[in-house]
Amino acid sequence: MARWIRFERSGTAGFGQLDGETVRVHSGDMLGANAPTGETVPLSAVRLLTPTTPTKMLALWNNFHALAAKLNLATPAEPLYFLKSPNSFLPGGATIRRPAAYDGKVVFEGELGIVIGKTCRAVGVEEARRNIFGYTCINDVTAADLINRDPTFAQWTRAKSFDTFGVFGPAVATGLDPSTLTVRTVLNGQERQHYPVSDMVFGPSELVSLVSRDITIEPGDVICCGTSIGVGSMKPGSTIEITIDGIGTLANRYE
Amino acid sequence: MARWIRFERSGTAGFGQLDGETVRVHSGDMLGANAPTGETVPLSAVRLLTPTTPTKMLALWNNFHALAAKLNLATPAEPLYFLKSPNSFLPGGATIRRPAAYDGKVVFEGELGIVIGKTCRAVGVEEARRNIFGYTCINDVTAADLINRDPTFAQWTRAKSFDTFGVFGPAVATGLDPSTLTVRTVLNGQERQHYPVSDMVFGPSELVSLVSRDITIEPGDVICCGTSIGVGSMKPGSTIEITIDGIGTLANRYE
Repeated sequence: MARWIRFERSGTAGFGQLDGETVRVHSGDMLGANAPTGETVPLSAVRLLTPTTPTKMLALWNNFHALAAKLNLATPAEPLYFLKSPNSFLPGGATIRRPAAYDGKVVFEGELGIVIGKTCRAVGVEEARRNIFGYTCINDVTAADLINRDPTFAQWTRAKSFDTFGVFGPAVATGLDPSTLTVRTVLNGQERQHYPVSDMVFGPSELVSLVSRDITIEPGDVICCGTSIGVGSMKPGSTIEITIDGIGTLANRYE
Repeated sequence: MARWIRFERSGTAGFGQLDGETVRVHSGDMLGANAPTGETVPLSAVRLLTPTTPTKMLALWNNFHALAAKLNLATPAEPLYFLKSPNSFLPGGATIRRPAAYDGKVVFEGELGIVIGKTCRAVGVEEARRNIFGYTCINDVTAADLINRDPTFAQWTRAKSFDTFGVFGPAVATGLDPSTLTVRTVLNGQERQHYPVSDMVFGPSELVSLVSRDITIEPGDVICCGTSIGVGSMKPGSTIEITIDGIGTLANRYE
């Protein structure tokens, strides 16, 4: 088990393993061959970056039994997903920004994120499991009023892809059993979501396997597993935190 | 006016300007500072690459008056768009592949593509016009039967993002007036689409301006302007060509 972060220091990007509040700097490829440089730096002395630089971020809709029951939705026969555009990617510690050109409701969605380690092209469930590098926390920020504003075309991409709306981090944790994890979302100090990952309709390895039949998934790519009950809106001036034990807390301001 | 291509030769990527069937090789940044190296190579001696490597490909739905009238769709109040995933990107000359895990209808959609030259963040129409580097041909290949297979969630992303479904090229042409262009699609030697770009609901500069209010658009990114009437299905063994005079012909096999 390890927790990997990417960081920026003096204008240069680096990566390493978290050991408490210390970063053990590594060189090489975080998802491949790498080695410790021997250098350590305090976490407080670096700026977090997104833990990977994905070529794409896929995100699931309607992937939790509890939320489906609450919304009276049928269990989907296959994974239902959309993309969050790369301009939306944001690390922990950075500020989520209210879009200037949209004045509707903006909601948080705390989620588990899968981080891919090896190229997945039509892989079976066991190979999918081996190709998962680790897990991260997701805040799938959404301009909720946009989705059904046009009666003929659901605007998932746009509602989910505003700059700063694709929040993930703070770390990628390896060696976790996802079925034991819980996702907690805290808005301004108040717990708003607390649900078990085991309630997923399509679990991580099955998701990667099924998606990889359609779409080749690359190292560093992220799949957001969907959210469960407790989604709510954020007001500017809020602090929003997604915590998954074993990974850490993804904390951001919303302005 | 110039037509730029990217190409691969002896395992190395390069770029240059097309002069008939000759490539005038350049060095530097195709979208920024560059200069001719003095070398020329025959087009037949290189393998085409996609003309840029986009961080994202946005694509419009319902953006032509003629198709909206045929399908009895209202003119949209705002651009309606989705994303095509990077694993789908394919250059001219390469083979579009029938997905192994989908046996429904696969359709071609010939379109004009906008190639961005400079970062666009909440730009006005005039700045958007200046930030467009040029135009390319698009084949927005679509697994049509997937879109509405689930009654609760339109699967635009998945239907449009199978490997090899995001076809663009062969070149990016600069200095064109898009309002004078026509898009022609020829399937196995038979013309299937022939429509004027001037019939667009949201024209290129307006599109870039409106999208950039939500989503920062980066150099090399592509916006597919949507298709018009004449979309149809392809059978394996077909040849599909999208031609826009001034840009060239985007020709691919479908297997």
